[in-house]
Amino acid sequence: MTVLELLDYAGVAVFAATGALAASRKQLDVIGFLFLAAATGVGGGTFRDVVLGAVPVFWVVKPAYLLVCIGVGLVVYFTAHLFESRYRMLLWLDAVGMSAYSVMGAAKGFAATGSPTVAVTTGVMTASVGGILRDLLAGEPSVLLRPEIYVTAALSGASVFTAASVAGAPLVLASAAGVLAAFAVRGGALRYGWRIPVYKPRPGRHPDDVM
Amino acid sequence: MTVLELLDYAGVAVFAATGALAASRKQLDVIGFLFLAAATGVGGGTFRDVVLGAVPVFWVVKPAYLLVCIGVGLVVYFTAHLFESRYRMLLWLDAVGMSAYSVMGAAKGFAATGSPTVAVTTGVMTASVGGILRDLLAGEPSVLLRPEIYVTAALSGASVFTAASVAGAPLVLASAAGVLAAFAVRGGALRYGWRIPVYKPRPGRHPDDVM
Amino acid sequence: MTVLELLDYAGVAVFAATGALAASRKQLDVIGFLFLAAATGVGGGTFRDVVLGAVPVFWVVKPAYLLVCIGVGLVVYFTAHLFESRYRMLLWLDAVGMSAYSVMGAAKGFAATGSPTVAVTTGVMTASVGGILRDLLAGEPSVLLRPEIYVTAALSGASVFTAASVAGAPLVLASAAGVLAAFAVRGGALRYGWRIPVYKPRPGRHPDDVM
Repeated sequence: MTVLELLDYAGVAVFAATGALAASRKQLDVIGFLFLAAATGVGGGTFRDVVLGAVPVFWVVKPAYLLVCIGVGLVVYFTAHLFESRYRMLLWLDAVGMSAYSVMGAAKGFAATGSPTVAVTTGVMTASVGGILRDLLAGEPSVLLRPEIYVTAALSGASVFTAASVAGAPLVLASAAGVLAAFAVRGGALRYGWRIPVYKPRPGRHPDDVM
Repeated sequence: MTVLELLDYAGVAVFAATGALAASRKQLDVIGFLFLAAATGVGGGTFRDVVLGAVPVFWVVKPAYLLVCIGVGLVVYFTAHLFESRYRMLLWLDAVGMSAYSVMGAAKGFAATGSPTVAVTTGVMTASVGGILRDLLAGEPSVLLRPEIYVTAALSGASVFTAASVAGAPLVLASAAGVLAAFAVRGGALRYGWRIPVYKPRPGRHPDDVM
Repeated sequence: MTVLELLDYAGVAVFAATGALAASRKQLDVIGFLFLAAATGVGGGTFRDVVLGAVPVFWVVKPAYLLVCIGVGLVVYFTAHLFESRYRMLLWLDAVGMSAYSVMGAAKGFAATGSPTVAVTTGVMTASVGGILRDLLAGEPSVLLRPEIYVTAALSGASVFTAASVAGAPLVLASAAGVLAAFAVRGGALRYGWRIPVYKPRPGRHPDDVM
């Protein structure tokens, strides 16, 4: 198993766990756990493969990814009550998955096109899709809209990986650097509430008050 | 017309009707009816074709599917006021469409890959996408998050069809068994409020209370 | 640069601006601006390319589209505070982008299939996806569900372009007529509150009151 395959399975597994934790918060039944685990686990990679034209997508080619999601979903189903705060657990696992996917997405995009711009974009988008999809399906407030840094962390991971790859670093080194960069930024945001100040903040009014 | 084509048109037509009923609940204009009818009608199949790499997707190849959605949307536009409860009608038609699609999705996935795991997954996901999309577009509470069984019904249909196909049953028989299984489970959930008990239920707190 | 490429860049740029304006309303950081600008800017075209099977999608083939989104996102980041009403600006730019995409989507669908039905559908869906995606990602009330005409405007643009093309009009003329038709209808809706009366309006009750 290559380093990229390892990252891919890791990303799928931890995103699957966050989907199952969201199912637990919504008190769904066991099949609801498995559904959200699978959708969140493979969501980001499905998006990546589709826009790059790598179809059938990865989990159709290798169904083992689905079995990973189902296994993780079952484990969470029987253990979710043990966590004091499922939402904090969800956020930290999401940080791990996002870090793995920011590199995986960039690596696939770079391999397919050779364009650093595309690599960084597929990295950021792939890393974000899993969480977006989970929050939409579970009716949770979107992790993207929380004040702490999120997309910036994905951007850090994708950029560091891409820059290292362009500079000729070995794949395993570029991958490790990218994952660490993304996780350091997101972890700092979760632990210390890091946020980037907004240039001229002003809250939006409700559409009905504007029209 | 084969049994699968028949199922496909049936799934598209009844999902289109649920989209139009959602448009009626939101008091959209006639074009809004047609838009939600088309998006809901072809949403599930579009997702299925894209992940399997069967592009251009089915309604681009056979535009007749779109004409079915438009016809159904118009009929609902002029008759929606006749139903005492449009939402109950929506749920029952959704049950029919979901049953048809759980088999159609499994059949296409099985034909494309030969993997039972993939077949069951494409069955469940295809069956769920139409309703998810409709609820997102129309701003309705997601049918997935209601306490009655939903995903489990789609899983029943896809599993029965796939098991029968693996066992060598003729296509028409496997399809009928799958559709009936899905509809029986979902119908029971709608009629009698069937639900699967949750292992250790505990409602999720709001993210702001956790962080 | 052909007239269609021009329309495409224009659609991407103005949709990107609406995404950045939504980011401003939500007080996101600069990277949040760029993310919403890129997702909204390329969302409609990504959907169009995927259903037509034109993968890898356009921005993977030509990364310049992404640079346009980033440039626009930065400009909006530093200027959003200058607009008295960002939401009105968002709606008017959305009208421009929707008009451009209703023609672009129809043109690509017509070129790929020769079917007027498919052309009108890809036109309407492509034109709507950008705004739908932006509103979902930013947690804004969907522009589709506002009472003023929206989908009808996209339908006008796609239909006029397709009819003119079928009638043999030169591409540049058919495009101009389509864009003007869409923008006239949507502009009138924004300026004068145009709406199509509903046949038998009746608000939907909450699901919990129905079941």
